[in-house]
Amino acid sequence: MLFSPAITRLVEAFRRLPGIGPKTALRLAFFVLSMENEAVEEMSHALVEARRRVKHCSRCRNLTEQELCSICRDSRRDNTLLCIVQEPRDILVIEKTAQFKGQYFVLHGALSPVEDIGPDELKIPALLELLQKGEVKEVIIATNPNVEGDATAYYIAGAARPLGIRITRIGFGLPVGGDLEYADELTMSRALEGRREI
Amino acid sequence: MLFSPAITRLVEAFRRLPGIGPKTALRLAFFVLSMENEAVEEMSHALVEARRRVKHCSRCRNLTEQELCSICRDSRRDNTLLCIVQEPRDILVIEKTAQFKGQYFVLHGALSPVEDIGPDELKIPALLELLQKGEVKEVIIATNPNVEGDATAYYIAGAARPLGIRITRIGFGLPVGGDLEYADELTMSRALEGRREI
Repeated sequence: MLFSPAITRLVEAFRRLPGIGPKTALRLAFFVLSMENEAVEEMSHALVEARRRVKHCSRCRNLTEQELCSICRDSRRDNTLLCIVQEPRDILVIEKTAQFKGQYFVLHGALSPVEDIGPDELKIPALLELLQKGEVKEVIIATNPNVEGDATAYYIAGAARPLGIRITRIGFGLPVGGDLEYADELTMSRALEGRREI
Repeated sequence: MLFSPAITRLVEAFRRLPGIGPKTALRLAFFVLSMENEAVEEMSHALVEARRRVKHCSRCRNLTEQELCSICRDSRRDNTLLCIVQEPRDILVIEKTAQFKGQYFVLHGALSPVEDIGPDELKIPALLELLQKGEVKEVIIATNPNVEGDATAYYIAGAARPLGIRITRIGFGLPVGGDLEYADELTMSRALEGRREI
């Protein structure tokens, strides 16, 4: 073996991260070995502390260090509008538009029989309980436009429909700034379905 | 602020790594928050342990947890051949060829007046001391083919020449499998300079 056990373990640790292949893991490991001791300790501490402190918001399952996340604590947010997303990072994407002033619910995944992820794993019963309280007037489903995201959207829509809440899903079509020429057929067919009067 | 302090600190820790931009740092941080506690602690431990245990080989400055690295300890390696590289990862690239059976010397950088890196920072005095012992018959300089790597190669060649050792530099030219059409003019000009009888 060319490298010592401690280096090998560090490379393996980096390889566990998504999108980090063997070459990148090696590059990151070598970089860490060239860092100041204190910087490495800080990074090591940041990992454990984040994992220990951060939990799911008891209302919307966004990441937070408190009982409720910063969005659920914010009284200026419209609690009649609830946007359902797969991952906490999706909230960032929507918040960047500065267009949505409602609240969120994070599924932390999508329905996937293959991976054994059902409604309970996504805490859909807790979502329905929240909807039954009667505050929410519209649910905007923002799951991903793929098989799992679609299945999850339909499942939630079906389960929430009896509650008499308006249920919508974000629009699909051509990305703004995109070129018709490069659109794949699925995107194009969704764009046609989603056409509007001008 | 949308995210809690512990998440922000974790994102910042990842951002310090090379090639990790804000989006990737966020993705990695979210991934860590979804990992098992033990896996995060293992990763945190791997960082600190690698930084603490790994040091430079006292002979060649390769990374090792012992006094001498695995290559310097290996009696089957040819100690009359010494390959000089900028970084420990360069050793991997050369070892993969299974063609070089000599030993190495790692500079951990290249001469750079801008960054205030001179011969002392690269431990070139220690390299010359090693060469003066008389074991080494040929020095192969494998610094990068760029301004800093070239300057470093010329500096070492100049300093080692009085010792009567053969000094070579790895060949430059077209990458194997490459296409002449896409070669930049510098590579092409080096390829012409490095032409050989066939």
